[in-house]
Amino acid sequence: MERSALLRAMSRAQSVVERRNTIPILSNVLIEADGDAVSFRATDLDIEVIDRATAMVSRAGATTVPAHTLHEIARKLPDGAMVELSDDGPNQRLDVRAGRSHFSLQTLPREDFPMMASAEYQVGFSCPAPTLRRLFDKAKFAISTEETRYYLNGVYMHAATGPDGPVLRCVATDGHRLARIDAPLPEGAEGLPGVIVPRKTVGELRKLLDDDEAKIAVSVSETKIRFATPDITLTSKVIDGTFPDYARVIPTGNTRRLEVDASEFAQAVDRVATVSSERSRAVKLALEDDRLILSVNAPDSGAADEELAVAYADERLEIGFNAKYLLEIAGQVDRENAVFLFNSAGDPTLMREGNDETAVYVVMPMRV
Amino acid sequence: MERSALLRAMSRAQSVVERRNTIPILSNVLIEADGDAVSFRATDLDIEVIDRATAMVSRAGATTVPAHTLHEIARKLPDGAMVELSDDGPNQRLDVRAGRSHFSLQTLPREDFPMMASAEYQVGFSCPAPTLRRLFDKAKFAISTEETRYYLNGVYMHAATGPDGPVLRCVATDGHRLARIDAPLPEGAEGLPGVIVPRKTVGELRKLLDDDEAKIAVSVSETKIRFATPDITLTSKVIDGTFPDYARVIPTGNTRRLEVDASEFAQAVDRVATVSSERSRAVKLALEDDRLILSVNAPDSGAADEELAVAYADERLEIGFNAKYLLEIAGQVDRENAVFLFNSAGDPTLMREGNDETAVYVVMPMRV
Repeated sequence: MERSALLRAMSRAQSVVERRNTIPILSNVLIEADGDAVSFRATDLDIEVIDRATAMVSRAGATTVPAHTLHEIARKLPDGAMVELSDDGPNQRLDVRAGRSHFSLQTLPREDFPMMASAEYQVGFSCPAPTLRRLFDKAKFAISTEETRYYLNGVYMHAATGPDGPVLRCVATDGHRLARIDAPLPEGAEGLPGVIVPRKTVGELRKLLDDDEAKIAVSVSETKIRFATPDITLTSKVIDGTFPDYARVIPTGNTRRLEVDASEFAQAVDRVATVSSERSRAVKLALEDDRLILSVNAPDSGAADEELAVAYADERLEIGFNAKYLLEIAGQVDRENAVFLFNSAGDPTLMREGNDETAVYVVMPMRV
Repeated sequence: MERSALLRAMSRAQSVVERRNTIPILSNVLIEADGDAVSFRATDLDIEVIDRATAMVSRAGATTVPAHTLHEIARKLPDGAMVELSDDGPNQRLDVRAGRSHFSLQTLPREDFPMMASAEYQVGFSCPAPTLRRLFDKAKFAISTEETRYYLNGVYMHAATGPDGPVLRCVATDGHRLARIDAPLPEGAEGLPGVIVPRKTVGELRKLLDDDEAKIAVSVSETKIRFATPDITLTSKVIDGTFPDYARVIPTGNTRRLEVDASEFAQAVDRVATVSSERSRAVKLALEDDRLILSVNAPDSGAADEELAVAYADERLEIGFNAKYLLEIAGQVDRENAVFLFNSAGDPTLMREGNDETAVYVVMPMRV
């Protein structure tokens, strides 16, 4: 088979395989050759990825070898090389040959490789890669990293009713900020059960979504989710927990409206935050008459302020936020101005891009 | 002053300043404005760097502020911005203004800033930046990281006699490998005392050497070394120790000669080493009749071998090396083939680029 196909498959495999494993077989990739294809399967018991590549198979067979080693070999072989994999039977080794390079890798029995139990999927639909990419890319920054709140350690995907009809919706939150991203509901996704897709799966899924032309087949059950292209199948357990009722966190009555160039805003936030060395830097926003003054006061190290010309016509407001949260939220805006909708200095603030309600962010203020 | 000049000066300063300091003033940069220039001075008590930039000085003065904070501010200000630094006296703060950004930084008294005692330099010479760059770049990989052998934690610079006359020589070794790099002795460097330039100083010096046209003024005493351009002065203590008699480590009677394309060689070493997960990977070189077979045998994980066409006409030899050392040494070769000179499997091996004796490397073999 071609080195590039081996490298692609092994890149995917080694990314799923955990670096440290107490169970040796979990460090391995299962290689199965049959017909005119070879498949590479890797798992961490929660996620399983299978990558199929065309190959000249002279003898069908299967074995397992260390995934990281085979990945390193594929990475270091010269571009364009043809790679031959063959089982040398008696020694229980896998021979890898390319040009004048020869490797002999220790194998473990294929029978010991844990296969993920197949599931009955209740819902199946097809979704263009760019749509899934947007849903997950814009939501994932808000995923919680607190292990005790395991039900927030992923993106909650479900069918919902948006302002303009039924939507496929992804929500993530860590209790301090929230992202709610919508896309038109694909045909067949009507009965979609709500599932929490774990952070690692979101990362692995992302690698399937680079091709703008790709259509992803999504299958969902109450315990698993599967994303598939003709060559790659990514199956993952979903988080066994209840995602909180996020709708009541999203403010609907906020009326004070700030419109600002997101990139100018982010740069100014970043600058004023430099004077504070604390991790949770509070930035104060003071709004009045189309003027925004950003300021930070860190008694130990100094102070900073910066003024921005903005659109703001409501009554004077002072409100504080964690600088990191403001930067991350502003970073989601790419086409239009950022629109912030405030209530009071103690209430959650809503942010969206222009008037686009298909991506809505909520951030909790901080006392300053 | 211009943001770019501030950024340049502060990049240098923050790189010398240690991230964690128990003595607060050591986190600060000393800013001194006078005439039409402002200088920025930073130190870790072993190294001192001074960067001078032209500035419109309306009132002479001096103060100290946290180096990392001022660096971050300079980094985040927009390109092309004009920056104004001013002392706001009563509050003991430094005001930094650029456009609509304003920062007020906590200061510490200039009197508390530790100045490096000036030294009587015994030798002074001028050296083109590319010459110093080559001397240190090609030697530094061999610097020891073992703190107990502190006298090996730097590059030993001294005047010596090379095959073609007097040279300025840099040597580094960690006991397993050694690099000896020569350049023609600059005028005035004849009485140069041998000094061990510490690893961190070598790193800071490197940043002065990017400009091919620059001439570096080098001043050396028995305790200090100074590198200066018109704008920048880098002063460093040298390591107080005796560098070992390296000359007796460099073999002179090695006669078995291997000539090989350095890049092909390095790639093959890198490939065969993949099968071993150990840190000190032993690679075996088997040489006979213009053939080199590289091999690794790691009983737990597998084996690998690769054959290269080389020039080798001496009697059959098998010799083992640490893969990392071979890769680093091969990485020094950029123009011609690598020439290895071996004696026996237990003796130090010499490597150079073609017949160029101004850069010579020694590597100790490993039992395989």
